[in-house]
Amino acid sequence: MELEHNRQQASKTNKPVRCIVKLGGAAITCKNELEKINEDNLLSVCSQLRTAMMSGSLSDKVLSLDWSKRPGGSDTAPVVEDFTSQLVPECDNFVVVHGAGSFGHFQASKSGVHKGGLSQPLVKAGFVATRISVTSLNLEIVRALAREGIPSIGMSPFSCGWSTCDRKMDSADLTMITKAINSGFVPVLHGDAVLDASLDCTILSGDVIISHLAARMKPEFVVFLTDVLGVYDRPPSDPNAVLLREIAVREDGSWSVMTPVLQGTSKEVEITVAAHDTTGGMATKISEAAMIARQGVDVYIVKAATSHSVTALSGRLKDDIPEGWRGTVIRFVR
Amino acid sequence: MELEHNRQQASKTNKPVRCIVKLGGAAITCKNELEKINEDNLLSVCSQLRTAMMSGSLSDKVLSLDWSKRPGGSDTAPVVEDFTSQLVPECDNFVVVHGAGSFGHFQASKSGVHKGGLSQPLVKAGFVATRISVTSLNLEIVRALAREGIPSIGMSPFSCGWSTCDRKMDSADLTMITKAINSGFVPVLHGDAVLDASLDCTILSGDVIISHLAARMKPEFVVFLTDVLGVYDRPPSDPNAVLLREIAVREDGSWSVMTPVLQGTSKEVEITVAAHDTTGGMATKISEAAMIARQGVDVYIVKAATSHSVTALSGRLKDDIPEGWRGTVIRFVR
Repeated sequence: MELEHNRQQASKTNKPVRCIVKLGGAAITCKNELEKINEDNLLSVCSQLRTAMMSGSLSDKVLSLDWSKRPGGSDTAPVVEDFTSQLVPECDNFVVVHGAGSFGHFQASKSGVHKGGLSQPLVKAGFVATRISVTSLNLEIVRALAREGIPSIGMSPFSCGWSTCDRKMDSADLTMITKAINSGFVPVLHGDAVLDASLDCTILSGDVIISHLAARMKPEFVVFLTDVLGVYDRPPSDPNAVLLREIAVREDGSWSVMTPVLQGTSKEVEITVAAHDTTGGMATKISEAAMIARQGVDVYIVKAATSHSVTALSGRLKDDIPEGWRGTVIRFVR
Repeated sequence: MELEHNRQQASKTNKPVRCIVKLGGAAITCKNELEKINEDNLLSVCSQLRTAMMSGSLSDKVLSLDWSKRPGGSDTAPVVEDFTSQLVPECDNFVVVHGAGSFGHFQASKSGVHKGGLSQPLVKAGFVATRISVTSLNLEIVRALAREGIPSIGMSPFSCGWSTCDRKMDSADLTMITKAINSGFVPVLHGDAVLDASLDCTILSGDVIISHLAARMKPEFVVFLTDVLGVYDRPPSDPNAVLLREIAVREDGSWSVMTPVLQGTSKEVEITVAAHDTTGGMATKISEAAMIARQGVDVYIVKAATSHSVTALSGRLKDDIPEGWRGTVIRFVR
């Protein structure tokens, strides 16, 4: 038993990270209603993640790892025997990072936390209020994942020791995140209010976190789950918007659209930044995605809770992009 | 403005920690009902903490720093003008650590997380379930403190990088906690499930966390807020139980009761450990308190939400123990 246990530990330690998933704020919350989770989407996302992570040893019976009370919910007491008769499921190493959506943005923009200045009472108050809001969302996502049997562990970038200097990443401590992964857990990070050596404080977006994690962990692929099908050549609300299927990123970080072949001379993609989004919208997303792809890590941008996200999370897009698949693949070309 | 800001930052950096407060699980939760907070006690504790921390610049108007929705609660939108017209209140450096009470204990004891062994599905599940439960409580306490205008920041020991080896403290990283304090925040830690280098995992109690924080931070005093008046010579349920007022701790860690003078030859204090308490009850508390006092830091054990806790939190007991005060003082004698 002891030996078996040691063997399992040893084999775990060197297992690389298969996938880093971003749960976009717009996909898992109702963006126009303060602090409201999109329960249907979140449930579907968690179920798809379960399938993707545990593909090798998926049992029919989902054993919830959330044994806490839920408002108006049913009995949460676990049946001990269910666990003792179960083998530890083989589980690919995933890391989850989520955005804020309708959590945190209100508090951050009202107080200007991203601009810094903790000597101002409003900014200091906003820092506390923002962290309360984003950690509330984090807890709900950790619980939703745990109810699908995923061994999720909430980890705030602030507490993990992540900080910035003049809004650029200053310290991104991966020690505890790596230890959690090596112990068989799925770390769940989030966009957070952090300390900034030059400005006192700022907002660290989930996209920037993903970019740093990907650079250090070199996962097989990164998936962005959003509320639209992928990246378009103009705002998706425009009826003439065309979904970009493949974007190629070169060594110098420049990128161009491979398919579809766009009409006209310009291959530039129009990007819009939503006014309420304190951390930059699609602009940040594409440039961060290009930075990730530049390091040889495939990036898939796809609509959450669809058959397309199932395909993306499975990793099958590395070999072949099926005809019917809808989404955007961003990858490195030499 | 910029200069003023820098000056404030500089002066903050060297300010020592005035007090570390333990919010006992039994004092802030209803210990016999799963995951139920003792709202009245928690409100009173937070209000007393506000008075103790901001004694120098207490304004009548409490500005809540919790701008999140509450179930069935009223509007949470802050009035920006209230903050911009306010000076940053002078605030003594406090650190808050809370126990689990009816949060976490059920999940931990059902699964045996404290005994380790993450290769067992039940233990791994219990680790996730325990962290969900204790971080839920942490969030509620951070919010309750923030509603009293205290700039509270939730920090999980697990995420901060605290871990054990064979249940003894292995790594207690104070970097982010110190940075948070120097930025004017009040870190709120909690008893947590952590990784253990020898056992895979275990439970790190709030009392052990306090002991390590006190040894490194050397606060002026430590206050344990509990659900009884202090330490008794036998279980407090015994009608003949006598409240111990002063316990002296010597260089070698041994301790004896100074007042009241106990009848009989034995000065030994009977201690009981509640069966449901996975981290050890009064036994752990006294020995941890003695370890803290041995380093010259006064320890006050007092009933939460009473006039006695107001006195203890004010720090006045350092000079004089008033006649009518009820509680236990544990201090170093040469």
